[in-house]
Amino acid sequence: MTASERIPYDPRTYEPLTFHDKTQSFIDGSDSPRDYLERCIATIAEREPVVKALTAINEEGARAAADASTARWKAGKPLSSIDGMPVSIKDLLETKDMPTEFGCEAFKGNFPTRDNAAVSALREAGAVILAKTVTAELGGNHPGPTTNPFDPARTPGGSSSGSAAAVAAKMMPAAIGSQVGGSIIRPSAFCGNVSLKPTQGAINRGERMATSMSTHGPHAGCIQDMWHVAIEIAKRAGGDRGCRALKGPDDTPPATKPARLMVLETAGWNFTDDASKAAFNELRAQMAAAGIEMIDRHSNASVNFMEHAIVDAQEIAGEITQWENRWAIRNMIDQYGDKVSFRSQGAVKRAEAMSVGDYEILLTRREAAQAAHANLAGLADVAITLSCPGPAPLWDASAPDADKVKHPTGYAIFNYPSSMLFAPVVTVPLMAIDGLPVGLQVMGWPGDDAKVTAIARWIQENIAPVVG
Amino acid sequence: MTASERIPYDPRTYEPLTFHDKTQSFIDGSDSPRDYLERCIATIAEREPVVKALTAINEEGARAAADASTARWKAGKPLSSIDGMPVSIKDLLETKDMPTEFGCEAFKGNFPTRDNAAVSALREAGAVILAKTVTAELGGNHPGPTTNPFDPARTPGGSSSGSAAAVAAKMMPAAIGSQVGGSIIRPSAFCGNVSLKPTQGAINRGERMATSMSTHGPHAGCIQDMWHVAIEIAKRAGGDRGCRALKGPDDTPPATKPARLMVLETAGWNFTDDASKAAFNELRAQMAAAGIEMIDRHSNASVNFMEHAIVDAQEIAGEITQWENRWAIRNMIDQYGDKVSFRSQGAVKRAEAMSVGDYEILLTRREAAQAAHANLAGLADVAITLSCPGPAPLWDASAPDADKVKHPTGYAIFNYPSSMLFAPVVTVPLMAIDGLPVGLQVMGWPGDDAKVTAIARWIQENIAPVVG
Repeated sequence: MTASERIPYDPRTYEPLTFHDKTQSFIDGSDSPRDYLERCIATIAEREPVVKALTAINEEGARAAADASTARWKAGKPLSSIDGMPVSIKDLLETKDMPTEFGCEAFKGNFPTRDNAAVSALREAGAVILAKTVTAELGGNHPGPTTNPFDPARTPGGSSSGSAAAVAAKMMPAAIGSQVGGSIIRPSAFCGNVSLKPTQGAINRGERMATSMSTHGPHAGCIQDMWHVAIEIAKRAGGDRGCRALKGPDDTPPATKPARLMVLETAGWNFTDDASKAAFNELRAQMAAAGIEMIDRHSNASVNFMEHAIVDAQEIAGEITQWENRWAIRNMIDQYGDKVSFRSQGAVKRAEAMSVGDYEILLTRREAAQAAHANLAGLADVAITLSCPGPAPLWDASAPDADKVKHPTGYAIFNYPSSMLFAPVVTVPLMAIDGLPVGLQVMGWPGDDAKVTAIARWIQENIAPVVG
Repeated sequence: MTASERIPYDPRTYEPLTFHDKTQSFIDGSDSPRDYLERCIATIAEREPVVKALTAINEEGARAAADASTARWKAGKPLSSIDGMPVSIKDLLETKDMPTEFGCEAFKGNFPTRDNAAVSALREAGAVILAKTVTAELGGNHPGPTTNPFDPARTPGGSSSGSAAAVAAKMMPAAIGSQVGGSIIRPSAFCGNVSLKPTQGAINRGERMATSMSTHGPHAGCIQDMWHVAIEIAKRAGGDRGCRALKGPDDTPPATKPARLMVLETAGWNFTDDASKAAFNELRAQMAAAGIEMIDRHSNASVNFMEHAIVDAQEIAGEITQWENRWAIRNMIDQYGDKVSFRSQGAVKRAEAMSVGDYEILLTRREAAQAAHANLAGLADVAITLSCPGPAPLWDASAPDADKVKHPTGYAIFNYPSSMLFAPVVTVPLMAIDGLPVGLQVMGWPGDDAKVTAIARWIQENIAPVVG
């Protein structure tokens, strides 16, 4: 790493790449989706050699789509708020015009020429599908080559590593990620993005290998682009089979000041460094000073009860997911052997030691936590907590002990609760520690995606970022 | 068709191929899984040229598996009650040793060399995976080549056409089918089998293209083999992601006489021929004579309410499924064009005319029906109705108007209610009309799979079949 590769992050001055505020200039002709795309392609040329966020890029297809969008905007007939927006797709989701390799050696060159339902919806909305982004292998924690855009010695987080890093490096204004345990919110928080992990089932996952907790969600530079991407997919492809779609206005929900916030420490608090704790507490103090009532486990017995209900989220979410992935990954190992990483092989071995009864006890524990959460609806407008236990950790795949590192893409300890609760979460970049981003997580009750977005927006617009 | 090809069905004398009653002879050495398998292979050679139930057969692999099973039984160490049982697999489910072509021209030769979770569980239980069976294209209603084993001029039903026909032709004692609308119970009833369509989610569907109502279930010659196959899968692979597995004893639930039965006409009654109605009424009269209280829409207001709650099941289940299959089949059409049948293309066109809002209204209607059903729990032990609106219809793919036939694999009108309600159903072969089987359907509340099996068993053992 050289000094020139490190780009310290400061939330007070960082300017993300945005799209929603450019569309007026597409109409008046002072800018165009094609020009916007060319700037993205130029940024990719500049940043990709170090950031390594992309597995494939379709410049020709993207240019054709951007030209068609340019014509629509000029004619005053855009298909949606994201018409012409360059969007990249996590490489777990199939795309008809680029390979889908799942971050797994066994699938090198895999090219199914199909579009995932969400990708199909993005194209229908006029979005420009630009590139595929690196995923940790099979959505697990075996890392790909992507580096953190603010420090190449650090992980961007995972498993949506490339989506988070590409947006943070301003290669495109939005990218699709997916989360089972913490794969949207964790990398987004490590990279200073805004992201939505929607209510379970609220954005159609289509055909991809999917567990009972997986979701698709956008990484974006700003909350407006985040919302536009999410709602335009949901309007066209709906939710998962048997589930309601994400609902809300076409435009971003207006900033809404909450009356009461529930502060959750979660099991993550004990794993958080002091500087990140102090930064979070300073945000909290600002909110209190703004007249918002803050309740926590120390001041409110119901919050304390909630903390207990989610304390085992990592174990519950982790083991449920291992069981649910068991057959798919076993088949891959039988077919491809060591082209599947030792980390995924280990996860399958742990799953194969479980019984149907073990799994059903985990389901019951998950449902008990969901019931506890449901029964506390109304206790506060939303809950807030950290999105990650501090800034992105160092990661060196070539280090002699790299195989023994437990969380090479960072620790998802703060993300299991919302995944387990099927609850919507938005992360906003409001902290920096040692020049690296740390996110604040806003969590609602299932179905409250628009409300969570509105409150996260208020917080981002009214609370000063903290630099520690 | 020649007279020799027609084999009139008489439930009073028909002897299905069974397995559960042979295992004692595997222990004492008077029979063996290998010998059992050879008899199956001989029957296939005899019947398959006309019945056309199979898409692939793996004799070599089956013989090796049967030999291993033979050794286990001799050593007194079978892996399960179905150790050594030849089982065939509907060609929608992946198998690592045979191609999976989905009944679709576009997938000719498709050989993913993976095992579906249920197939994996069957192998773990010692079952002998013998063949793949014909499915109507993509599990829809575009028929494959299979003929009804009792009359080759008629359909075996669909979409589990080959599984139903192969078991009825005694090629093997059990085969796996799958149902979204009526794809297990309808063909099973047309072929004189016993089948379970389990509670939604109770048998792991694994990775296959799956909608919110699809299930896997066994076709078998007798209720014991049906149960053994279902429970041995569920014990190993569990239920779907996030769902409880089928539960019950390892051995078949003992026959249980019900105290009160709810007779449901469903929307199917108006499409049923008079002979089938008369046969059903005769079964009903026998049950009343046995001292079982029979309630129906005419005698009981709650049953009448239930009839109203499910009257639109065909529309609700059909349109939900079209929407859920929309992206997968659109991708196939984009890739393979007219190698996808005009029937599947039509279904996608209808889905593409729907909106997310249309779909969510259908979900709400489905949930309203489920709530009505749930609120009537305890009204009767189970419900009974016909499994099909009469015997299997004639089907001639080469007829000039074949493309216009609305239900080439028969009409699933009696099957949509249980699919929509996520309710377990067992069909038992208790009627014959014009020398063709007609099934009786026993439906319980979600989770009642073992109870439904116990009552279906009692009915089959105590009520005399009716020949009309």
